[in-house]
Amino acid sequence: MVGPEHFDYVEAPVPAPADGEILVRNLYISLDPAMRGWLNDAKSYVPPVGIGEVMRAMSVARVVTSRHPKFAEGDIVSGIFGVQDYAVSDGKGVVKVDPGLAPLPRYLGTLGMPGMTAYFGLLDIGKPQPGQTVVVSGATGAVGQVVGQIARIKGCRVVGIAGGPEKCRHATEVLGYDACIDYKHEDVKAALRRHCPDGIDVYFDNVGGEILDAVLTRLAMHARIVICGAISQYNSSDVQGPKNYLSLLVHRASMTGMVVFDYVSRYGDAARDLAEWMADGKLQSREDVVEGLENFPSALLKLFSGDNFGKLVLKVAE
Amino acid sequence: MVGPEHFDYVEAPVPAPADGEILVRNLYISLDPAMRGWLNDAKSYVPPVGIGEVMRAMSVARVVTSRHPKFAEGDIVSGIFGVQDYAVSDGKGVVKVDPGLAPLPRYLGTLGMPGMTAYFGLLDIGKPQPGQTVVVSGATGAVGQVVGQIARIKGCRVVGIAGGPEKCRHATEVLGYDACIDYKHEDVKAALRRHCPDGIDVYFDNVGGEILDAVLTRLAMHARIVICGAISQYNSSDVQGPKNYLSLLVHRASMTGMVVFDYVSRYGDAARDLAEWMADGKLQSREDVVEGLENFPSALLKLFSGDNFGKLVLKVAE
Repeated sequence: MVGPEHFDYVEAPVPAPADGEILVRNLYISLDPAMRGWLNDAKSYVPPVGIGEVMRAMSVARVVTSRHPKFAEGDIVSGIFGVQDYAVSDGKGVVKVDPGLAPLPRYLGTLGMPGMTAYFGLLDIGKPQPGQTVVVSGATGAVGQVVGQIARIKGCRVVGIAGGPEKCRHATEVLGYDACIDYKHEDVKAALRRHCPDGIDVYFDNVGGEILDAVLTRLAMHARIVICGAISQYNSSDVQGPKNYLSLLVHRASMTGMVVFDYVSRYGDAARDLAEWMADGKLQSREDVVEGLENFPSALLKLFSGDNFGKLVLKVAE
Repeated sequence: MVGPEHFDYVEAPVPAPADGEILVRNLYISLDPAMRGWLNDAKSYVPPVGIGEVMRAMSVARVVTSRHPKFAEGDIVSGIFGVQDYAVSDGKGVVKVDPGLAPLPRYLGTLGMPGMTAYFGLLDIGKPQPGQTVVVSGATGAVGQVVGQIARIKGCRVVGIAGGPEKCRHATEVLGYDACIDYKHEDVKAALRRHCPDGIDVYFDNVGGEILDAVLTRLAMHARIVICGAISQYNSSDVQGPKNYLSLLVHRASMTGMVVFDYVSRYGDAARDLAEWMADGKLQSREDVVEGLENFPSALLKLFSGDNFGKLVLKVAE
């Protein structure tokens, strides 16, 4: 389990940008389950964050000084600026965001990586058809809340899995889930049997562990499982593999992993759809804002205890 | 673990076929890993075999009496006739086989369900491309021997996993595998690293367990895992799920289950290709023949101990 003891809070002079670079002031820093994986010294889809390095993070920031032709002082931008107040960047992977269109934290959530992950994971890998049953774990989280609403927009029966009655109420009343299972107080297997009488056609998995195993007992024929994450397993040195994976054989089903970076050339399409659904009132977003750079380690823990409610961001400046 | 104590050997009068039926004399009975699953009282792709029922099995048989327009006395046929000397059938699912074209046991192996399973599992689900690396567990078994050879015919680098030096030698010298890992005497993970320097593009899994987990550590990007079976787990009440399944995420890989019955409309295509490869000397088959109906229970055990070498069949009459 990651904890405050694994991070140092270090003061250093604000760096000066060189020619072709910008200096930015972070405003909102994204807290993501994937961060836990970046701390492991193991081969993965990005290199690990080394000991003594600034913790990697997406953020929304204001350009303080620009020596880059594409950015001006005062621009609001998003990029991988790390868990720090100020950062220098050469502009690669940095995009301008419109503060008039949506609250800034949303650019780290529904209009950011989590929204893209939801969009491509559900539509490209899950391939839900109208009338099919889609189950989403982490149903009110940064990714899950978008997955569930896209599935609803696409005409599916949508069943969420979330922790606690408050999240489940939010899922059905605000996000439009047909049902939401409270895994902290309900028998997930029995509830899936009740809410998915025709089986599960698409499962979007953010959590892994017991819940993945419960879903495997209720697959429909040719079901698609999207492996987006496994937050229940990230702090475990002994990952629990899905014991019921042979249900894939019985149901001619598939389990496929996805990493959002593969879809970078199509982010524009997704952003357009998501913004349109938002403007039409069909897509709601909830952010959970914690204040103070120094609170990063404890805020990160909220993800693993399930205490966050919506996309978790750290506010570090106005 | 299934054993002789779970079967009764019962004598009963030979039944008489009614109008539209045939009476057949079983000659060779197929022994399949799937049989273990049929003994479990659980929902699967076929109903379980009930207590007191004749054990379900494919076989090759001779028509003794025909009251069916499509079959004549003396025809050699294959069908699901069960583990018994004689069976009555209404002809559904029964096909004639040509005893001049191949030895009869082969119609239960390479030219039967195992061959079909290999063909569609590898080509339709695994989708191997020339130059890619294909790994096959149970590499000299009924299905695996065909998978490995088709992969070789399709221009892939093929690495087998089998138990013992004799099987591994057969894999490389007779079946044309580029390499074969002896899981009983080698560290599978290290050997995969050595034999699959560019990672594994397709894994055809017949065994599950530790070997599946080892393969997951060596996936290439966009790898396809075909879940055909998991013989290492069939006698366990506590299936070992693949702990390393998050490698699917890191490598944008998929794990897909298959059941051969879904391809029944295309069996003809597969049979034509397999027969052609066999005629051209590109496809070898090995059968392991045990004699005597009464030896069914002990012969079945050979599958789970890995003592069979090639497609295991029971000879019950000349």
